[in-house]
Amino acid sequence: MEHISLDASASPAQARRAFRDGQARPTCGIARGYAQANMISLPKEYAFDFLLFAQRNPKPCPILEVLDAGSYEPKIAPGADIRTDIGRYRIWRDGELADTCDDIRDVWDEHDDLVTFLIGCSFTFEFPLMDAGIPVRHIIAGANVPMYDTSIRCADAGRFSSTMVVSMRGIQPSQVAQAARISGRYPGVHGAPVWVGDPAGIGIGDIAHPDYGDAPVLEPGDIPMFWACGVTPQAAVMASRPPFAITHAPGYMFITDVPDRQYMA
Amino acid sequence: MEHISLDASASPAQARRAFRDGQARPTCGIARGYAQANMISLPKEYAFDFLLFAQRNPKPCPILEVLDAGSYEPKIAPGADIRTDIGRYRIWRDGELADTCDDIRDVWDEHDDLVTFLIGCSFTFEFPLMDAGIPVRHIIAGANVPMYDTSIRCADAGRFSSTMVVSMRGIQPSQVAQAARISGRYPGVHGAPVWVGDPAGIGIGDIAHPDYGDAPVLEPGDIPMFWACGVTPQAAVMASRPPFAITHAPGYMFITDVPDRQYMA
Repeated sequence: MEHISLDASASPAQARRAFRDGQARPTCGIARGYAQANMISLPKEYAFDFLLFAQRNPKPCPILEVLDAGSYEPKIAPGADIRTDIGRYRIWRDGELADTCDDIRDVWDEHDDLVTFLIGCSFTFEFPLMDAGIPVRHIIAGANVPMYDTSIRCADAGRFSSTMVVSMRGIQPSQVAQAARISGRYPGVHGAPVWVGDPAGIGIGDIAHPDYGDAPVLEPGDIPMFWACGVTPQAAVMASRPPFAITHAPGYMFITDVPDRQYMA
Repeated sequence: MEHISLDASASPAQARRAFRDGQARPTCGIARGYAQANMISLPKEYAFDFLLFAQRNPKPCPILEVLDAGSYEPKIAPGADIRTDIGRYRIWRDGELADTCDDIRDVWDEHDDLVTFLIGCSFTFEFPLMDAGIPVRHIIAGANVPMYDTSIRCADAGRFSSTMVVSMRGIQPSQVAQAARISGRYPGVHGAPVWVGDPAGIGIGDIAHPDYGDAPVLEPGDIPMFWACGVTPQAAVMASRPPFAITHAPGYMFITDVPDRQYMA
């Protein structure tokens, strides 16, 4: 198996092939210029409630594509296979994490009606932040982004309810406005931050210990900026306990063929 | 019954009360500063397919709110009743127009699971156009906006497929760019036009005879500008023939309590 170097210069197809061939790492910093996506597959019986949940909560759940029931080839990445092309998956049964794996074809075949949702990811605007001279510290450190459960209530929809999950980046005071402005240009991949400053204000007890991803990298004077995060559907699965779900693992995203500019407002 | 003058100065609640009390007229030019909405109610069995249709076709079907099954009080107009507060409704059976009425409480009660979708309307950005000195000719003439079936294919979703319906406004060449720019600021209410110029290019045979609304008012030199229209769901009902649906009549919109600025990108 050829080992592909996964960095900013990888194409989306190269990155997906590397994940299909068994590599697994967080996708921040990979495939400059292309949108990345969160993924959740649910039995069709739950698809309306979840699509409504996403419609009512567009900050954490901006929908990029909804695949037809049973389909695993997204229009936003022709030739890709959603069952193999993500580095790490999570299998959920009755709202409990049942398994982690790098290929879901076996469990996929247990169902004939899974509806897959691809949801925007803030990794998409990290290259534009860096292009503007804003250091993205977890990429520099070669780490996953830190993510946190919060006290922010999402709007309920049918059988789904949840609090919001956020990602955090530490930004210098002189660049906070610029980071808000640049990310705000990309509403389809979470857009502007939902909170800037005191973590306690959104129920985060200890910023040093995130609920998902790696420990934060913060430099002296950094202001923590919090963006709505596409891991929120996983919090909704834990809270609402559908009988079955498959998601990506936080930070291990699906890389699409869509240029990030296409999601600019 | 007090007769309320329905013009730009009417509040949304005043306008809704007037429609509840039996008045009926197109809502262009009414309640300056507030978003207007297209409406469609479908049995819950069709709700996922329709929400997916809207998600895949955000230009004609930008969702403002989806009400819970059976609910008729929108969050975007507290105290309103979606069954009475629109001036004119259309009842659809098997994709055929079965009735037109000004109150749907009777047919509503035939069903216990109707899901109502409120969809953005281009009337919302007509006041901003006028504020920029762009005449909106059908408002000046006291007429409904002209709307047309087109050859533009919408993306299919489950049992729904359709071509796009558009609204048309004639704009002077010196103001075409400004009209595109101003409407483009409001993606939640159809945003920028989908077509500018030759009607034949989108399958419109005779611009003088619209498929919905009133005959167009065009001044010498006007360029026809075409915006995606929230009557598209009615074309989808005709094409896809769900057993039952209720919609507003084209141009007779639901007036919300949401300031139009809230839908600015």
